[in-house]
This record gives sequence, C-alpha cells and structure tokens, in this order.
Amino acid sequence: MNQPPEQWIGQGVAEVDTPALVIDLDAMERNLQRMASYASQHRVRLRPHAKMHKCAELARRQMAAGAVGVCVQKTGEAEALAAAGVDDIYISNEVIAPHKLQRVAALARSLKSRGGRLAIAVDALAGVERLAQALGAAENMIDVFIELDVGHGRCGVHQVEDVLPIAQAIATHSSLRLAGLQAYHGGAQHLRSVHERRAALDQVLARVRQTRQLVTSVGLAVPLVTGAGSGTFALETSSGLFGELQAGSYLFLDADYARNEPDPDQPVFEHALFVKTQVMSVAPSHVVVDAGHKSHAIDSGLPGVLAKPLRAVACSDEHTTLKGIHTNAQLPALGETLWLIPGHCDPTVNLHDWMVGVRGGLDNGKVEEIFRVDARGRLD
Amino acid sequence: MNQPPEQWIGQGVAEVDTPALVIDLDAMERNLQRMASYASQHRVRLRPHAKMHKCAELARRQMAAGAVGVCVQKTGEAEALAAAGVDDIYISNEVIAPHKLQRVAALARSLKSRGGRLAIAVDALAGVERLAQALGAAENMIDVFIELDVGHGRCGVHQVEDVLPIAQAIATHSSLRLAGLQAYHGGAQHLRSVHERRAALDQVLARVRQTRQLVTSVGLAVPLVTGAGSGTFALETSSGLFGELQAGSYLFLDADYARNEPDPDQPVFEHALFVKTQVMSVAPSHVVVDAGHKSHAIDSGLPGVLAKPLRAVACSDEHTTLKGIHTNAQLPALGETLWLIPGHCDPTVNLHDWMVGVRGGLDNGKVEEIFRVDARGRLD
Repeated sequence: MNQPPEQWIGQGVAEVDTPALVIDLDAMERNLQRMASYASQHRVRLRPHAKMHKCAELARRQMAAGAVGVCVQKTGEAEALAAAGVDDIYISNEVIAPHKLQRVAALARSLKSRGGRLAIAVDALAGVERLAQALGAAENMIDVFIELDVGHGRCGVHQVEDVLPIAQAIATHSSLRLAGLQAYHGGAQHLRSVHERRAALDQVLARVRQTRQLVTSVGLAVPLVTGAGSGTFALETSSGLFGELQAGSYLFLDADYARNEPDPDQPVFEHALFVKTQVMSVAPSHVVVDAGHKSHAIDSGLPGVLAKPLRAVACSDEHTTLKGIHTNAQLPALGETLWLIPGHCDPTVNLHDWMVGVRGGLDNGKVEEIFRVDARGRLD
Repeated sequence: MNQPPEQWIGQGVAEVDTPALVIDLDAMERNLQRMASYASQHRVRLRPHAKMHKCAELARRQMAAGAVGVCVQKTGEAEALAAAGVDDIYISNEVIAPHKLQRVAALARSLKSRGGRLAIAVDALAGVERLAQALGAAENMIDVFIELDVGHGRCGVHQVEDVLPIAQAIATHSSLRLAGLQAYHGGAQHLRSVHERRAALDQVLARVRQTRQLVTSVGLAVPLVTGAGSGTFALETSSGLFGELQAGSYLFLDADYARNEPDPDQPVFEHALFVKTQVMSVAPSHVVVDAGHKSHAIDSGLPGVLAKPLRAVACSDEHTTLKGIHTNAQLPALGETLWLIPGHCDPTVNLHDWMVGVRGGLDNGKVEEIFRVDARGRLD
C-alpha cells in the first residue's frame, strides 16, 4: 500500500481504507483562493512553505494562483520538488555541510539553466564562505537571505551588528546575490490571542527595521524582507516592511491554528486535511480508533474530531482513544468512520506517501485524485 | 536519498550525511543476545514486537537467536515483513474492516502454505464473526488471542465475563484456533519506579488468572498468555502465567526507557539507536542541530544527547535546540557532529526509509550495512 491507491479514483469516499490522509478538495481550494486573493489585494508576494505539503502538484496549484514559488526547509525537499517540476524554490534554512552545499550548488545551476531560481538562508560568516566555495566563480547563481533571530530563539543572527559582516561577505562573491532578510517568528504563530501575537510582532518589526537600516547605511541593498506564517501574516503585511509571505498551513488549517483567536484582518480558513479512521474497539467509557501518532503528529496536541461530541484523550503509535465531551454522550459504534483533524499538518503529511483528494464532501463525496507526497522523508 | 545509500558501506562513519538514523551494531547485538539469553534461561518464548524496527532483516536476526516469530500492530506491517521472508507473525491488535480481514485471510493462507503461521487479536464478538467469515471453511488457518484490557484502558475486553462468549465463538469456527490471551499493559512499561510497575503488574496478573480460570472452567483450553514489554517483562516472566514475551524496545533502548529505575531482575540494555546530526547554527546561549521531530519522535519526550553536557530544550520540524546542562558549559562549534538518543524508538524508525549500521563505535567506526525499514509507513 506504499504505492498510491489509484484504484480509489472515482470511487465513493466510503471505499477509502483506514487510516488514510484525506484532503477535502473543495475546502482546500477555498483556502487557496482566499490566500491568493489576500496577497494580490495587499500587493505582497506569496511564497508558501512547501515543508507543509511536500507535494509538487500542490506547489504548482499555489503558483498557478499567483504564488511566486515555494519555500522548503531541506536540500532534499528542494531536490524532490525540483525533480517534479517546481522551479522557484527558497531553502529558508541554513546548510553547513560542504558535501550538502555541493548539492545546493548543483540544484542552483540546474534551476537557473531552466529559467528558475534557487535561494537559501545564512546566519553565519562560515555559511557564506562555504556556500561561495561550493558555487565557484559562476555569476549570480543563488539568492541569499540573511536570517535574523527575531524572537523565536532558534536559528538566525542574534546580534544586529553581526549582520553587517555577513552582508558584506555576500556582496564580495559574484555567485551570490544579497536578496534580503529572512525574519520568521515561529513561536508567534501559535500565541493564542491577537494581542499577544501583535506584541511579538512589534519586536520582530523593530529588529527588521534596525537591521535594514544598518545594512543600507553601508550602501548595500535589502531588496526583500521575507517571513510570516499562517498565524500572523496580516501583521507582517500591514507593517509594509515585508515584501513576501511564507505562510503554508493556511492551505489545510490544522487543529492547532484553529485554537488561535481569529485576527479580523486575516481571511478565514477551513480545515481541509483529515485522517479518515474507524472505531476498532469499544469500551463502556471510551472507543479506540485505528489511527495513532504514526498517522498524525501530536507535537502540537492531540487531534480534533470532526462534527462529533468526542475528544481525543490519549494517543499511541497506532491508536487514538476518544471519550465523549459530555459524560452521557453516546459513543460511536464498532466500525464507525470518524475524521480526525491533525494537530499539526506538516509532520502529519510527512508520515504519509500520498493524500487522497475527495470532492463533494467527506460524507458522500468521491475520490478525485491521489496526491503524491514527493518530498516525504526528505530530511537530507 | 529515499534510496538506501549503499555507497556508504565500508566508509567511515564521518561520511554519513546528517540527519541519519544510525544503529550501533555492537551495542544492538549485545542487547539482542542478552534478551535471547534471558528468554532461554527462563524458558519463556520471545516474540519481539517488530512495530519497533519494522525491518525484516532485524526480525530474522532475532529469530535466528531464538525468537519464535514477531508481533506487528498492523495488517500492512505483517504483509511487508511476510513479503521480505518473515513467516511467523502475530498481529497483536484488532482488525474490524471486512476488506482488511480479506487481506488477513489471504496472508494466513500464504504463511500456512509455506510452513509459517499468522495470529491475530480480537476483543469483540463481531471481530470473531467477521474474521471467521473472511477465512471461510478452511481448517485451523489462524491463531486467535483474546485481548484483555489489563489496566491500560485502550483495547481489550473490559469485563472478564465478556471473554467467555468470545472464546466460545472462536471454538465454533474450525478456521480459528483459540491460542490464548493477549495481556499487555502499555502504560505500566513507563512507570518510573520498580515499585509502581510491580503494583500495576499485580492487577494485570489478577485479571489474567481470573480470565484463564473462567475460560478453562467451561472446558476450553488457554494454551498461551502473551504480552509484556521492555519495561516489565521480568515481572510477567516470574509470574509463571505468561508463556511469551513481546518486548521489542530492548533492541535499541530509547531515551524514555532509560529513565526507568532499573529492575535488577532484568538484563541491562544499552542505547543502540541514534540520530546523527550536526550543529547548523550557533547562538550565545544555545546551538541548533539539523534534526527535528521529522527525524525523531517526541511523543515520549525530547531526545537525549550522547556523551555531552547538553540537553534538548525545544524541537520543531527540522531543528532541535540544545543548551548546556550547566550554565557555563562550553557549547559545540558550528558543523560539529552530535548524536541524539530518540525519546521513543518505534515512531522514530517509522520516519526513516533505512537505518545505517555502524561497526566499531560511533566515533571512528565504519558503515557495515544499510537496513531497509520494510514496513515504514504501513499504517494500513
């Protein structure tokens, strides 16, 4: 079953074996259009993060709706999507290993030769020097963004003044183009209240302004600031500082994002990714379904249950235990189909080789398409 | 890179790209022998849980050292291991969907025809009837264990008296053989003190005794009680009730099991599974390595760091953030190799297509073998 189940195409959704990762295509397309319209109306570039879906076909549809390209997090993801036809890719992450930078260089040449473009992030002088060494003397082969730590406390240049030597080093290599700044605050996406997210973004914006001023003060250009996720992108957009949004989760809307207080300045997105599962065991106080955390990631909490008064109370490799939200709620029967809403879409998709696209709703719809997860497992 | 990197075989471990899942073969073989010796000395059958490694080659080595076969949790896992030559497999879990029971029946016939055997668990009358329907009139095709809820609160028959009609139903079908009772307490494995684990097991044993007495009182045999995990198996063994141990994690010993107070009656196991990673970003207060929870599962806690005064403080899809255990500890340098000890081996292995077997230690050893994760992603 690691081969895509093409035989399900045209069948009713009831024929889909459990557990299976299912896309509600109608909901996904509404999400896709809402985000594309937002970017277009606000004259901001959209470069969705493809680490979320890892799927070349979905990347192509986002680009057909106006996205300038996609982000990825790993060289291997970039290679997998490029091999499947995506030609404008930004590795929004640092690469340090010299042999991996050889692969980055090869991909940059390949994409450029077909009219596309590769970009990458750096946060250290050593990263710039190793990248330049891998690329050799070729002209203008890759766009380079300097990543700032804007409050998340992970990668990125920590001290504003350390950006300058990095920017100057990039400028000395003809193979590299200083494309701008990478400023993504991952933690801010999941702060529950609009107020908290706004406060976190104030710090982001201050850091970006300060850095941009420093870099331009020595005569270097900062063509673009790129960043933002599905939790905060209206804040980055309204700042006027960010020219490009990297939001990715808007396409599927995971259970964790739905726990955020909605920002009235953002479009409303719908859940579009589900794990189809069935009740495999019934006890007086609970039921157990046949999908566990090998089928849906729980790093951002247990999954939701679609349209049922049930909540997940425990999750193991291949089981999720559900109880009624109210003590006297009727539990589902053995074999009954349930739909889980994954807590976090990105690592959930990475557990699957394919996603089943359903048209016409989850109750009575039909399987229209099987989507390959092209970059599944590409950690490299 | 989803193809096994056979070109690494014979190379030094330094050549292994990061992140990569690496087996310390010397440590693994010591674990394998210690568990095999334990089972042999205590005259108890060992049927390791292959949901942990999902690898036919490792299953074969466990069986070569004395294991009677393996457990799996999913029909798809059983199919993948059977296709790779493993012929004694127990699906220690319920299967309810009629079309999936057709696959179970086909696999039972296939294994029997080559001199092997399939077994499965049930916890409901409907499960027995559906299984029997899928198998048809053939004689003695599959072993059936009745799963008891022995305190974990997941699957398994909840009320002891409900076991009787299930056992009697099994006995009426000539295709089914009542093989015994499945009694596994997952939660008990991870209770930290020996005292707590012993208290939990007392309840397990009481439930098993009571059930066995009930079933034998109506003239039905209970040939075997099967269960136990790497945290408690000495307790099940010493009870004399259990004829078969299902422990699987002993082979690799994840970080979570190492947090248990050791039971002096169990052999000592060593960590044998690691994620090779490297420092990709350095900040004044922390470093970031290039492996996140898409490379090692965090459902049982963040990973440990081998032989360094460092601790994981945060983990995202592709990053783990490490700080010094002591405030003045020296942080590793950009590009430095580190070895993470996964919190939970089972879902970690499921994230990878292959494991890299290293001989001669992680510092200066050589790659000896690449192990395919045959049942990776087999949720079906």
